[in-house]
Amino acid sequence: MTTLLGVPEVVIDRLPIYARALAMLEMQGRQVVSSQELGAELGVTPAQIRKDLSYFGRFGKQGRGYNVQRLAAELKGILGLDREWRMVLVGVGNLGRAILSYRGFAEEGFRIVAAFDRNADTIGETFDGVEVQSIANLPRFLKDNPVQVGIVAVSAAGAQEVVDTLVANGVRGILNYAPIALHVPPGTRAKDIEPVLALQSMTYYLKGATS
Amino acid sequence: MTTLLGVPEVVIDRLPIYARALAMLEMQGRQVVSSQELGAELGVTPAQIRKDLSYFGRFGKQGRGYNVQRLAAELKGILGLDREWRMVLVGVGNLGRAILSYRGFAEEGFRIVAAFDRNADTIGETFDGVEVQSIANLPRFLKDNPVQVGIVAVSAAGAQEVVDTLVANGVRGILNYAPIALHVPPGTRAKDIEPVLALQSMTYYLKGATS
Repeated sequence: MTTLLGVPEVVIDRLPIYARALAMLEMQGRQVVSSQELGAELGVTPAQIRKDLSYFGRFGKQGRGYNVQRLAAELKGILGLDREWRMVLVGVGNLGRAILSYRGFAEEGFRIVAAFDRNADTIGETFDGVEVQSIANLPRFLKDNPVQVGIVAVSAAGAQEVVDTLVANGVRGILNYAPIALHVPPGTRAKDIEPVLALQSMTYYLKGATS
Repeated sequence: MTTLLGVPEVVIDRLPIYARALAMLEMQGRQVVSSQELGAELGVTPAQIRKDLSYFGRFGKQGRGYNVQRLAAELKGILGLDREWRMVLVGVGNLGRAILSYRGFAEEGFRIVAAFDRNADTIGETFDGVEVQSIANLPRFLKDNPVQVGIVAVSAAGAQEVVDTLVANGVRGILNYAPIALHVPPGTRAKDIEPVLALQSMTYYLKGATS
């Protein structure tokens, strides 16, 4: 699968991992890093790192390594991480509450601006500073507020309908926790956070090795 | 990245998705499915499906489609999904509680047999039928009970230590929810469930398109 710009999706998927490692090195005060070191840290070959980065221009001199600060900034720009992203959460059960309490989103510029549920007991409650609204308010909210990403944390049965509502109201990014294969129109990006699928490919490797 | 058996990891990662779609078709009473239909359902090209399956032998006759029941059973066997897998959960905060209440694991044969935390307030509490034990008990538990997968739902700061304990006591599969790059020895499989990384590659595609 290759994107319109010719950069394979697997390459795009690796860039945030590089960006994260570089941010860590930057915090440690490192100025230069080689593709060997970066590769050893991340479990990727140096050749892979050089090839992935080559899609976006020349970032290092042969034998000199990468300038940590510059490459970190470039990757943030390429990925669009130099701005804030606004998200809504739909579904405030146990999973939704864990998502609301997770600090990692806001730290990286992903802000949950509103949360929605259909359960009357949950509507009106506040979790980590976000008051839960009725899902009936979702279309109105999306019309009045810029939102780029919808987090779907409802059950499988309700997930496609929620996604359709999000997409119909201009949300182009879906982070899906429901265990179904979503249908989204072209131009919409959906990512599945799917622990069972992750386990089900892991077992291919474990099945010969474990008791 | 190619495995020892020569099947690329990206292919293995797609097999559970095929297996899930086939299980759904089987439930609907379908007997035969073409790679075209399966591809249309999953957003994968028919050629990709045929190529992925060809690593494991011949499953369909040209122009005749796949026998749904047979292919579903074959994929389950290949992936090791025809048995029960035993898991422990480490970290019983909001996220850990969402994991314990998630029905999708047990439905697919992944059973959480014990949960561990370091917080004295949480130890002794029961969530969804699992009593939380002190993390000090973890090595002993793993010596006495067969466990194939460890779910890591602790904070970034404590995650590597938890993984080291799991691996030192024979656990070969790690499902990691902590936002760090884990180090695991060869022969151990680790999968990251990483919402922020998923968002950070999604924004590459969204950045040109959204407000």
